[in-house]
Order: sequence, then structure tokens, then C-alpha cells
Amino acid sequence: MSYTVEERGNVNTLSYRLFFKDADGKYISPFHDIPMYADEARGLFNMVVEVPRWTNAKMEIATEEALNPIKQDVKKGKVRYVANVFPHKGYIWNYGAIPQTWEDPRHENADTGSGGDNDPVDVCEIGTKVCSRGEVVRVKVLGVLAMIDEGETDWKVMAINVEDPEAGALNSIGDVQRLKPGYLEATVDWFTRYKLPDGKPENRFAFDGQFRDKDFAVETIRKAHGFWKALVESRQTASAAKGLNCKNTRVSSGESPHHCSEDEAKAVVDKTSPCGSEEPVPSTVHQWFYYERKK
Amino acid sequence: MSYTVEERGNVNTLSYRLFFKDADGKYISPFHDIPMYADEARGLFNMVVEVPRWTNAKMEIATEEALNPIKQDVKKGKVRYVANVFPHKGYIWNYGAIPQTWEDPRHENADTGSGGDNDPVDVCEIGTKVCSRGEVVRVKVLGVLAMIDEGETDWKVMAINVEDPEAGALNSIGDVQRLKPGYLEATVDWFTRYKLPDGKPENRFAFDGQFRDKDFAVETIRKAHGFWKALVESRQTASAAKGLNCKNTRVSSGESPHHCSEDEAKAVVDKTSPCGSEEPVPSTVHQWFYYERKK
Repeated sequence: MSYTVEERGNVNTLSYRLFFKDADGKYISPFHDIPMYADEARGLFNMVVEVPRWTNAKMEIATEEALNPIKQDVKKGKVRYVANVFPHKGYIWNYGAIPQTWEDPRHENADTGSGGDNDPVDVCEIGTKVCSRGEVVRVKVLGVLAMIDEGETDWKVMAINVEDPEAGALNSIGDVQRLKPGYLEATVDWFTRYKLPDGKPENRFAFDGQFRDKDFAVETIRKAHGFWKALVESRQTASAAKGLNCKNTRVSSGESPHHCSEDEAKAVVDKTSPCGSEEPVPSTVHQWFYYERKK
Repeated sequence: MSYTVEERGNVNTLSYRLFFKDADGKYISPFHDIPMYADEARGLFNMVVEVPRWTNAKMEIATEEALNPIKQDVKKGKVRYVANVFPHKGYIWNYGAIPQTWEDPRHENADTGSGGDNDPVDVCEIGTKVCSRGEVVRVKVLGVLAMIDEGETDWKVMAINVEDPEAGALNSIGDVQRLKPGYLEATVDWFTRYKLPDGKPENRFAFDGQFRDKDFAVETIRKAHGFWKALVESRQTASAAKGLNCKNTRVSSGESPHHCSEDEAKAVVDKTSPCGSEEPVPSTVHQWFYYERKK
């Protein structure tokens, strides 16, 4: 299955939206309508790329909007950019989410002692290619980090694009450690410090900041798929689940009360601003922030 | 004094050239015609930015070409990009050269035990702003690293743009250590490993990889200015000094036999290809290379 994207509004502004279409050009939700598995037999998952490596704009699936386009996160009325925390430049992986997963805030995780963050499961894709925003890539899961962000459990799945030239050699967290020395430590360092420039405290991790293995990661994703399934099949979603929008076009209508027609989906997109010119990234985004690293 | 640049040829190809003009729009050489000092009384130097921070194209003043435009370095017939050596992305400073300086290969330096690398003195500018290729910035010198590259002495001056918001607080190598923790270590690490992906050995350093202070750096630059002065005033330059081109328009004609007229300078530029479209950067440039870091 191949997907395409359609830009609406102006890049780097509040109006920007990136909508998804299936191979037939019909609008879909990247949250609900792209299958979690790209190839279940081979254990491959789909990943929706929200932030290409080395960029700063905090783009994410708008879980609260109809059809869940990618939009730029907003803070104090302005579009948000993640700071460069030395020695890192922007995001250090292709960053995105696994469709058809949801970290249920009402479910307290036994290992982390806190509920989910109300988002799809996040993925750090460590391949060589710099992906495009909105690209849907097939990934092999390698492990997972359990970040605790302001009292919420926010899993960070480590994965590699199955098309990567080195994908065959990367099958575990140990392989990452061996073939990409420093990358896992940099990942923990990045998540620890990336909000310091915004005046927030360091993030913490369950399991003493150690990565869990591939099997644990897959089990975590499958649980989050179960939470998503209950969400999208429930009639009470809108009120019960913090304003998540479950409108979808491909989850069978018998299973989801939020199923909508092709025409309805098109009307959602048509209501948004047409694609306009790109605003420049503010020069302040290029600042580098320096903090002593933990040894 | 303000300078402008004029692009010729196609970016990311062998034909690309970036020529310099003075405030009157007359062509000049960035190697010979821009003064070394921006403000001698305040100890400020000019720096010609060759490579903006976080980019990979190895752009440099073409010392062997008339008027010394910036061009992309060539290796095995192809334009050269510096590899991303993890955790670094491209060059980690604005990188460039101090005009009217030359590291004379015939002069063996007592501290390093080797001759100069036949180029102007290199500068790593550590300010917040990502500069433009060809920008001429006024910098405050903070110290210097003595790299030994394949038996040649290649000084790397550490400096900060005097317009940087933090420039007032940065007056020594110690200040860099304190205010930008990790940056000096990253600088040594970068220069040590940046040629490994090309199959070359690690670079070495004099002084055990320690930075020398500001006074030492200024003295090094002043010596290189002396070598440059002898070069540009000598009639034998072309043959004696490895094909360096000393054509200039602003060094007084009494002092330099290589002085040329405004019309002659314009004819040099007119002979090059007009500005065309930009070629895309090859995707291989985005590869990250991983090596164990020295502790």
C-alpha cells in the first residue's frame, strides 16, 4: 500500500496541515486508517514520519482534528520548534508514530507507574535516509525506551526502515549499540535534555534509562493497538478521551461509529486553507543550547 | 566596509563560483583584497565564511584561481562533501578563513615541526547565527588549535562573531569552556575524525590537542599575515608558491606586481559560466558515520 500527502495552509504557520491519501487518492486518517502492521508475518510495522532527521519543527499527527492531518504543535499561540541541545542538531532520528496505536491515559502501566500520554506510540527511526514529512515507512522494531514526561508514560520505540542498506544487520538493541556506537546514549541524552531550553526539567525514564528489547517493544505496541481499537470502536470517544477525533474512512463501519464517507472526508479537507507560500523558519531556531552532559 | 557576493555557475557542481565585490560593486579577491583586520584597535579580524554551520559542502577560497572566488573542493572529479561523523551534523561552526594570511609551506613551525598547508588561516566561528556562504564577519579571536594534517600545520582559530549576543562574555578559551560546555571537546573530536569516512587516518594535533590562548592565536595570525605579504609582493609567486594566484585589485600596485585593473577583474568573472540552477545534494551526503569516540 502506498500513500501520498497533500499540503494545506502555509508551512511554518498555524494554518499548515498535511493530509493523507490512499493509493486511490482518497483521504484517510494517518492515525486510524493506516494499518499498524505493514507486514505482520515479517513483523514489520508502519511508521508515519512526522519530523525528518535534523529538522526542528515539532510536527505531529493532530489527534484532535478530523482526519488527523500532521500539523505543527503550538505553544503560547506560536508554532513550536524543538531547540538544538548541544551537540545535537534538531531531531537526531526520523521521528514519527505507529498508526492504530494509542497510549491510554486511563491505563496505569505497571512498569512505569503512570498512564499513557494520549498519543499514538512514538518511533525513532535510525536509518541512513532522511525521510520526508508524511512519508509512511515500513520499520523493523528493535527496542523501546520508557520516557516519563510530566507524569505520563511516553514510549519511544527504536526502529529501522526495512529499506535501509543495514537493516539486515540490525535486529536488536545490542546490534544498534555495536553498529552505531553512541546513538543509544545520544538518544537518552536528547530526550533527557530537549525541553531544558523551554525552562522545563529533565525528563526521567523507567528501567533506569535502559532500553527494553524487541519483544518487549512489540508487546508494548500491541497493547497500544488494543487501546486504540477500543477507542475507535467506542461511541463515547469524543467526550471520554480528551477530545480525540476518531473520524476514519477505512476502519469498517460496523466496527467504528466514527466511520465517514469519502465525500465527508473531502469536505473536511476543503474547509481548510489552500496551500500557500512557506514562511521562513525564525533565526532563533538556529540557536544552540549548552548544558553539562551527565556522565 | 561591506561586501557582496555574486554567484556564477551551478551550485553543487564543478562550475560553481562565488565572487566577491566591494561596497562600490567592484570585483575583489577575498584572499588578497579584504583587510585582515576589521578593526585593529579593537583587535577584530575579518573572517570570510566558506561553510555555514551544519552544512556539508566543502566550499573554500580557490587560492589557485584569479580573484580567488569560493568554489567547492573537488575529489576524484566530483564536488566534495564532508561526511557527518556521529554525533555531528556537517560542520559544527561557521567555518572560513582570515583574509591576507597564508600558511607558508616552506616555513617549518617550531612548535609543530612542520610547514604550513599553503592556505589562508582557518577559523571556526562559534556564534549563534548560521552565517551565509561568502559573508564577511568581524570576529574576536579566542584561541587556536594546531592540527597536523598529513604532515602540514593547519591552524584552526577559534573566534566569535562580534555581533553575537554573547560576544561580550567570550574573551578566552576558558570562557568557551565555561559558557559552551562540550564545544571545545567536540571541535577536537570533529577534526580528529572527520576524514575517517574517506579512509584517511585520524588527524593529530600539536600541544597534545590543547588549545593555545588568544595571544598565541593572534601572534599566529600575524605571522601568517607576514607570509602573505611577502607572497603578494613577490614577482615569483606563480612558480614559487604552488600555483597560488595573487591577482588583486586593492593591494596598492606599488606593492604588488599582481595588481590588476577593474576591467581586467571584470573580464575574469565574465569568462565563467553564468549563474544557473542548483543541483540537488546527493542523498549519500546525509549518511551518518559511527566510530567509537576517544574518551
